Amino acid sequence: MKIRAGIVGSAGYTGGEMLRLLINHPDVEIVFVHSNSNGGNLISDVHTDLLGDTELRFTEELLQDIDVLFLCVGHGTAKKFLEENPVAAGIKIIDLSQDFRLAEAAGNDWVYGLPELNRERIKTAGFIANPGCFATCIQLGLLPLAAKGLIMNEVHISGTTGSTGAGQGLSPTSHFSWRNNNLSVYKAFDHQHLNEIGQSMVQLDPAFDVPLTFIPQRGDFARGILTAIYLDSDLTEEEALAIYEEYYATHPFTHVSRKNIDLKQVVNTSKGFVHVQKHGGKLLITSIIDNLLKGASGQAVQNMNLMFGLDERRGLRLKASAF
Amino acid sequence: MKIRAGIVGSAGYTGGEMLRLLINHPDVEIVFVHSNSNGGNLISDVHTDLLGDTELRFTEELLQDIDVLFLCVGHGTAKKFLEENPVAAGIKIIDLSQDFRLAEAAGNDWVYGLPELNRERIKTAGFIANPGCFATCIQLGLLPLAAKGLIMNEVHISGTTGSTGAGQGLSPTSHFSWRNNNLSVYKAFDHQHLNEIGQSMVQLDPAFDVPLTFIPQRGDFARGILTAIYLDSDLTEEEALAIYEEYYATHPFTHVSRKNIDLKQVVNTSKGFVHVQKHGGKLLITSIIDNLLKGASGQAVQNMNLMFGLDERRGLRLKASAF
Amino acid sequence: MKIRAGIVGSAGYTGGEMLRLLINHPDVEIVFVHSNSNGGNLISDVHTDLLGDTELRFTEELLQDIDVLFLCVGHGTAKKFLEENPVAAGIKIIDLSQDFRLAEAAGNDWVYGLPELNRERIKTAGFIANPGCFATCIQLGLLPLAAKGLIMNEVHISGTTGSTGAGQGLSPTSHFSWRNNNLSVYKAFDHQHLNEIGQSMVQLDPAFDVPLTFIPQRGDFARGILTAIYLDSDLTEEEALAIYEEYYATHPFTHVSRKNIDLKQVVNTSKGFVHVQKHGGKLLITSIIDNLLKGASGQAVQNMNLMFGLDERRGLRLKASAF
Amino acid sequence: MKIRAGIVGSAGYTGGEMLRLLINHPDVEIVFVHSNSNGGNLISDVHTDLLGDTELRFTEELLQDIDVLFLCVGHGTAKKFLEENPVAAGIKIIDLSQDFRLAEAAGNDWVYGLPELNRERIKTAGFIANPGCFATCIQLGLLPLAAKGLIMNEVHISGTTGSTGAGQGLSPTSHFSWRNNNLSVYKAFDHQHLNEIGQSMVQLDPAFDVPLTFIPQRGDFARGILTAIYLDSDLTEEEALAIYEEYYATHPFTHVSRKNIDLKQVVNTSKGFVHVQKHGGKLLITSIIDNLLKGASGQAVQNMNLMFGLDERRGLRLKASAF
Repeated sequence: MKIRAGIVGSAGYTGGEMLRLLINHPDVEIVFVHSNSNGGNLISDVHTDLLGDTELRFTEELLQDIDVLFLCVGHGTAKKFLEENPVAAGIKIIDLSQDFRLAEAAGNDWVYGLPELNRERIKTAGFIANPGCFATCIQLGLLPLAAKGLIMNEVHISGTTGSTGAGQGLSPTSHFSWRNNNLSVYKAFDHQHLNEIGQSMVQLDPAFDVPLTFIPQRGDFARGILTAIYLDSDLTEEEALAIYEEYYATHPFTHVSRKNIDLKQVVNTSKGFVHVQKHGGKLLITSIIDNLLKGASGQAVQNMNLMFGLDERRGLRLKASAF
Repeated sequence: MKIRAGIVGSAGYTGGEMLRLLINHPDVEIVFVHSNSNGGNLISDVHTDLLGDTELRFTEELLQDIDVLFLCVGHGTAKKFLEENPVAAGIKIIDLSQDFRLAEAAGNDWVYGLPELNRERIKTAGFIANPGCFATCIQLGLLPLAAKGLIMNEVHISGTTGSTGAGQGLSPTSHFSWRNNNLSVYKAFDHQHLNEIGQSMVQLDPAFDVPLTFIPQRGDFARGILTAIYLDSDLTEEEALAIYEEYYATHPFTHVSRKNIDLKQVVNTSKGFVHVQKHGGKLLITSIIDNLLKGASGQAVQNMNLMFGLDERRGLRLKASAF
Repeated sequence: MKIRAGIVGSAGYTGGEMLRLLINHPDVEIVFVHSNSNGGNLISDVHTDLLGDTELRFTEELLQDIDVLFLCVGHGTAKKFLEENPVAAGIKIIDLSQDFRLAEAAGNDWVYGLPELNRERIKTAGFIANPGCFATCIQLGLLPLAAKGLIMNEVHISGTTGSTGAGQGLSPTSHFSWRNNNLSVYKAFDHQHLNEIGQSMVQLDPAFDVPLTFIPQRGDFARGILTAIYLDSDLTEEEALAIYEEYYATHPFTHVSRKNIDLKQVVNTSKGFVHVQKHGGKLLITSIIDNLLKGASGQAVQNMNLMFGLDERRGLRLKASAF
Repeated sequence: MKIRAGIVGSAGYTGGEMLRLLINHPDVEIVFVHSNSNGGNLISDVHTDLLGDTELRFTEELLQDIDVLFLCVGHGTAKKFLEENPVAAGIKIIDLSQDFRLAEAAGNDWVYGLPELNRERIKTAGFIANPGCFATCIQLGLLPLAAKGLIMNEVHISGTTGSTGAGQGLSPTSHFSWRNNNLSVYKAFDHQHLNEIGQSMVQLDPAFDVPLTFIPQRGDFARGILTAIYLDSDLTEEEALAIYEEYYATHPFTHVSRKNIDLKQVVNTSKGFVHVQKHGGKLLITSIIDNLLKGASGQAVQNMNLMFGLDERRGLRLKASAF
């Protein structure tokens, strides 16, 4: 029997990716695809690449006869939506916004859905707060160290994200004429994802107490995040590699590369690559993900797979675009 | 029992795509991956995005214990390879070069592997000449008309291809500093794919006898082909649409879009989209494919599926990158 | 004594380019830079690249004490603006919109400002209708033939434009996530610039009476237009080249290249390159310009130079970006 | 009387930019343009954008009758070239390689040609070692602090460069199919420009003794460098701004922006923009240049202007491409 899924906020980027993934997922039946603005329209009239892949239409109704609900609405809207639309007991919820990521605000019912951190808790969770895209990429770079209590100095992070990270809203910084061949810093030191990263660090290492210094950049590509992270460390390169390889040995989507990595290796997949180098006293970790997949909808499906007892990679063995 | 496949020329773009597809194909076992220059190396050391997806290594040997051989070597090299390396009887061959596309030169053993043209012949073929990328895109735009004998005037074609169409060899026109944000015409009126297109036109319409005028361009993107084709025609737009929709009704990868199309709708998929408009006496057909998939390796897998009695879409329901 | 210039609509792309050019023009003094929405603001707060180059501010007033007025407002707005804001006698006007390009509608006071067509008339004109960007690029490809009465067959044109051609308004097709690495056809056969091109053809060759068939495309770059034009012709390649070279011998911005051309050769310059090839009975002409310079503001300055008796290249010897 | 200039290594990127600049420089006469591989060829056959701008040809001879020699050859080659081709006394030399940047190796005859650091010494210098591109961008971000002795903590730098920074040699990381929409880290902590930056820091602040930690990245654009630099600092944002604005008040190409900056503001100009923000105890400085202009050939011309008593901006008031 298939998992019956509903999607809310399905006209946006992450909603579209959710559709692209679930349409081909062998164990999922999409029951409804909610959109206030597109009710009645063919999905393939909005996500036009889906022509030939689905005859589904958006609905304005929210059917309750589902097993799992994916919330792909904006930050702030998810919480409000759930207040206004009570979901029947027993329906699992996976929320892609930031509304329930911080335990302090979300309460104990919500599990932070980063499988590389919380796989066992996710398996039995009812409600999942899906991590942020930058948060995912940076945590993949830090989890193995934090788990060993080895982050004892300020962590320096620079990261660059594709334009889809900012959503499909039109803005001066999403205009092609501006963004093409351009680069800029934004939200330096203040990116909202630092909170959820800090929470995970403390979860793994209650003694964690160093600053995370983060310079995000807007890149001139549509998909992907690359972060470069370094800190002072006594580990040798081989020791660090061993720690990373051991940590990720059982995680099917995150791989430790012994070679230098580049963003397009993971674009259009749900994988994350991590690379570790030692330079003098500095340990450098670079990590890459596709912001819409491992950084959003792919991870949401990975969480669903875990919640329903499926193989974690079910429906997620995606061909890399590579070029 | 799985189809046992071998790949020759697997270090290039189309060889890499073949690997990306076959690794996830549920009915295929990759038996060997031949590369003279990379023998013994991990595939994921060359196609680095495949880290975590395969532990296979390139071999220098050619094992004969296979059901199908994919030839991903250069034009001219395929023919030579088969002369120097006789393939055991019963092994099916799918050649991605242009060496066997023209019946006159290839002889009757080879079937031109465009499923939208030759599906039934492909099913029983032993040897398949996989079509060229531009040739595929243009033919998708012309087949329905040719099949009705409705191409009675000069056909005007402009088309733009991504950089992967030129292979991974380094050349001034593949240098990023040059090609980024650039555009140029090449091989005007003389593109080698015109021959195979003409052959197909005559196959469908023995009376076909009009010029195909083609201006190819180098685009500043890595993947994809868009062609715009027009000719004088008496058909109304609705008549033309009906002809196209009827022709492609049973073809699972080629879809007639009622909306204007854009290249990224099919990038990283094995689909083709065709759009038809009438303007005065001109019928305009635009068509799009991913040059490495529907234009090369995806179509090769589609042919393999047909040759082995599988569903045509087996292993080819690829998530579009969309952005 | 310097030419006193005013600019209206100076917050847009062409207005910005006008400022970038006039600020460095040795014979021009910018008297006012009008913008309703930005009155009082520093120009360098809007065109931020001009930091360090000018301390000028936008004004809401229209000062009359000028020699020349550049109108950089939208199509339709220019005409309305002049009706609502009578310009003092003796002030020359250069309008970059399409409002006055067609003599039938504009009347005899306006000269179509394509120096390669109308240089002598421009020198004595009071009012200039600056040509469209596609119109300029295509005409550079056709003028020499039309002047000889040698366009006797249907003309087939495909052309691709950068995103700045669509202005800085936000729209789905100007969103970076969509346009990056994408390509699409728009306004096939119906582009509004065909009218002004046709008018010029008839001006040069009153017997001109063949269709101009034009397929425009949206390219994934910010600046530039490349058009590929062909027609049946009895000319040899050398005859054609001689005609083009003779025609442009005295025009300092338009050059006949004996080598294949590519878009970036002219990006960020006010030059146009034309290349001619013969293939069988077809004459192929490719032409390239920067849509914002030779296709808009650069040509406006060229017209100003001619109107005020300056060297045509004054202030327009721009360094190509080349890469 | 014009400055008589010769260029060696003129077929590469920086040689090409040197030509693009000097051709339009009102006080320079290009006497010879040396290239071993292109001797006798038209410059516009190699730098094809220069068609219509120059009739000059490359020469294999080195004429001595010049006032200034620009060396645009590779690192290591410059030193060797001067050993094998003694330059007549009195001829000024500006070398764009790294061969003479470090005083220890170069000796006292060579002045490090960063006008924002050494303007007075440059004016009287005979031999100039033109700074590296990353080195220029980073130093523009650090000079004001170093001059006040205010760099007392480790400096953290991330920077991204365009593909032209790697020269026009073909390599896997310069292939369009790879680099398009890609991003990667290289030479982390080890970039060769750190040496010349450190030398300048000590020149301004003999007590300078903190690490410079630098993560360079390969960006997917052709031109430009953006660096983000931060360090712990007691300065308030206003104090820092005042220091930067005072330092650059007399430097015509380097501007302190009060608004966030983005790379394209300076592309195709010889300007540098610096932006300063304070976040908690961290001072963030972002800086941008065009790697080929302020980072190479533009700065070489700026140095020439200073050496010959010209206005520093002579021939360098370049129109930004902006888009």
